[in-house]
Amino acid sequence: MNMTDYMNKQLDGVQSSSILAFSTFAQQIPKIVNFTLGEPDFNTPNHIKDAAIRSIKENHSHYAPSNGTQELRQNAADFLKQKYSLKYQSDEIIVTAGATEALYTAILSVLNPGDKVIIPTPTFPLYIADVILAGGQPILVDTSATGFKLTSDVLKQTLEKEGAQVKLIILNYPSNPTGVMYTQEELDQLANILRNKPIFALCDEIYSELSYGANYASLAKSLREQTILVTGVSKSHAMTGWRIGLLCAPQKLSSELSKIHQFTITSTATVTQDAATEALGNGKDDAIPMKNKYQKRRDYILKCLDALGFHSAKPSGAFYIFTKIAPDLEQDDVKFAYDLAENGLVAAVPGSYFGPGGAHYLRLSYATSLDESKRGMKLLQEFVAKKRAQPKN
Amino acid sequence: MNMTDYMNKQLDGVQSSSILAFSTFAQQIPKIVNFTLGEPDFNTPNHIKDAAIRSIKENHSHYAPSNGTQELRQNAADFLKQKYSLKYQSDEIIVTAGATEALYTAILSVLNPGDKVIIPTPTFPLYIADVILAGGQPILVDTSATGFKLTSDVLKQTLEKEGAQVKLIILNYPSNPTGVMYTQEELDQLANILRNKPIFALCDEIYSELSYGANYASLAKSLREQTILVTGVSKSHAMTGWRIGLLCAPQKLSSELSKIHQFTITSTATVTQDAATEALGNGKDDAIPMKNKYQKRRDYILKCLDALGFHSAKPSGAFYIFTKIAPDLEQDDVKFAYDLAENGLVAAVPGSYFGPGGAHYLRLSYATSLDESKRGMKLLQEFVAKKRAQPKN
Repeated sequence: MNMTDYMNKQLDGVQSSSILAFSTFAQQIPKIVNFTLGEPDFNTPNHIKDAAIRSIKENHSHYAPSNGTQELRQNAADFLKQKYSLKYQSDEIIVTAGATEALYTAILSVLNPGDKVIIPTPTFPLYIADVILAGGQPILVDTSATGFKLTSDVLKQTLEKEGAQVKLIILNYPSNPTGVMYTQEELDQLANILRNKPIFALCDEIYSELSYGANYASLAKSLREQTILVTGVSKSHAMTGWRIGLLCAPQKLSSELSKIHQFTITSTATVTQDAATEALGNGKDDAIPMKNKYQKRRDYILKCLDALGFHSAKPSGAFYIFTKIAPDLEQDDVKFAYDLAENGLVAAVPGSYFGPGGAHYLRLSYATSLDESKRGMKLLQEFVAKKRAQPKN
Repeated sequence: MNMTDYMNKQLDGVQSSSILAFSTFAQQIPKIVNFTLGEPDFNTPNHIKDAAIRSIKENHSHYAPSNGTQELRQNAADFLKQKYSLKYQSDEIIVTAGATEALYTAILSVLNPGDKVIIPTPTFPLYIADVILAGGQPILVDTSATGFKLTSDVLKQTLEKEGAQVKLIILNYPSNPTGVMYTQEELDQLANILRNKPIFALCDEIYSELSYGANYASLAKSLREQTILVTGVSKSHAMTGWRIGLLCAPQKLSSELSKIHQFTITSTATVTQDAATEALGNGKDDAIPMKNKYQKRRDYILKCLDALGFHSAKPSGAFYIFTKIAPDLEQDDVKFAYDLAENGLVAAVPGSYFGPGGAHYLRLSYATSLDESKRGMKLLQEFVAKKRAQPKN
């Protein structure tokens, strides 16, 4: 008797991550330059580490309230207000086990089986898996023709086509994998189409602190009543391993969201909450020096890629460049990426792993030092030069 | 437009915890003796705190592998083998955000909508909520007539009655709220009935280190292939606030379980995993001194209750006493418990909050010091004496 035959049938629809499989493969190659990382290469700032150590010494080893400590929720509310003019009260914020749990909780809380979910692609594949696990139906909308942004025209057409079963739209800005952001005007236009329809907007803003140049825009400003906002300290404060996310929504919604949260994990670790309290309080501006470094790396890599004939989506935020393989080279991005890793010693994730619109692209993460980025670009140049020198079939 | 009208309909079927509501009410009464606690009153042992501090200093602030660090999984496997003769390889163990996430992940991974789940009661209400969220149907089986244990006869009858739709049985030993444990013989009898049926057994053994006297028994010994075992360091090492649980199952099952785990939380906090590694390694026997204290409190409270005419389920483990209100007193346990809290300054959770079979009972947690327990018993004696002195209606 094979017990796996009797499990939840939705599990068949979700696969372990191809991105993870590619990264694991690439990391085993000696001396490879790794542009696949999805987390900051920086360590958590010292004052945050000190706050966590104090918390341990003071025996904060007992359960925290399920939705999070009052101190953290208040600091989170102040942070969102001061940084982005977003108005959430502390009791509208739930502290989650990373943005992952916030997304999962939101998606499971909102969907009934059969509900449709609009997901602009290329996208982080986690959203699709969560929708499938909730019994929902992902509607993937290729945005590669419109600068990797969902336009209000396309949204309108999609809603007309898909009908009343659309329950949710998932937006992620700055985007993983493209680094693209929306302007407030663009988001306002999307909001105007969604307003007063029974559709939730789940906005993954986990990279909000890593935006370059542009004013930060959020759908929560124009469509607060229907928006569920996800953010956290993982990317802003180099705290991925601390697992602290934030799930924000108007009070009536958040009290429903807190049910799935409570039944899923009870609460997040108390010590890690105390660390995040310090991050969002005294560490409000911790992201700035890291952002300056990311920006230098981004500018350097973009220039090198351009010179090689690899043109990229305009990366206004996060730490990703989504670049199109030069037209004279192998156009199958999975083949190209595996070849580049094995024979060029450079690891970049195939764009098609991020869904429709990603084919022919590569995602390069610049959460890797400038020196290492320089070494990587040199290796890429050599690899490309070799390919170009080969006789064509 | 009220957006909550459009959310997941299963949310209507789960309510915020009445136990929590009662505890919150009771805690607001000055000078009350609190027998409602579901977590150890001890602090985490110092050597574990030191390990966590080292981990922070060494910048273990990046993502851990989704299923947990190799060190923790290996220590967990060794611990289970040495303490309970349970044979799990490290790759059959998933590190979860407390036992709560382990239970949630297991239940969501196993159930398809409409599946039936046998839950012996009185029970911790979380199981029921998880089953409802998964679209399953809880089949509550009152065990109060058989010493708060599910007997093989009752299991057999229940399976015959409920038919092929039964997918899962959830056992919890030592039990919250009754403290009752099974013998290995009793579990073997249950295993014989379940064997080779397409039914999973989810065994919540989070209180395994807190068993008094008896040899520890586990269904995983007799029915490994169908068993999903949940345990963790929360109760054994006074680490509730660290949120580290363990989800153990044969490799084929655990690789499916890891999907929901991965999509729910990615991984647990790295620092807390390092703390748990120390707990299950150098801290293997940390529970013993705490257990000795619990046992003294238990014996004291049991004696006092008996003298008052409150007879209790035989509490062989955990830190709960489930006691029947003396027959000459108010028999509505919710009324009695609220009266006792307000007018007697003693907080004990109404038994009916734990489902069928719990009416007329109270749950007393002895995760409170011996001095405080003595004060509580004195207050209870005074309250009962006053009631008995009142003229009957």
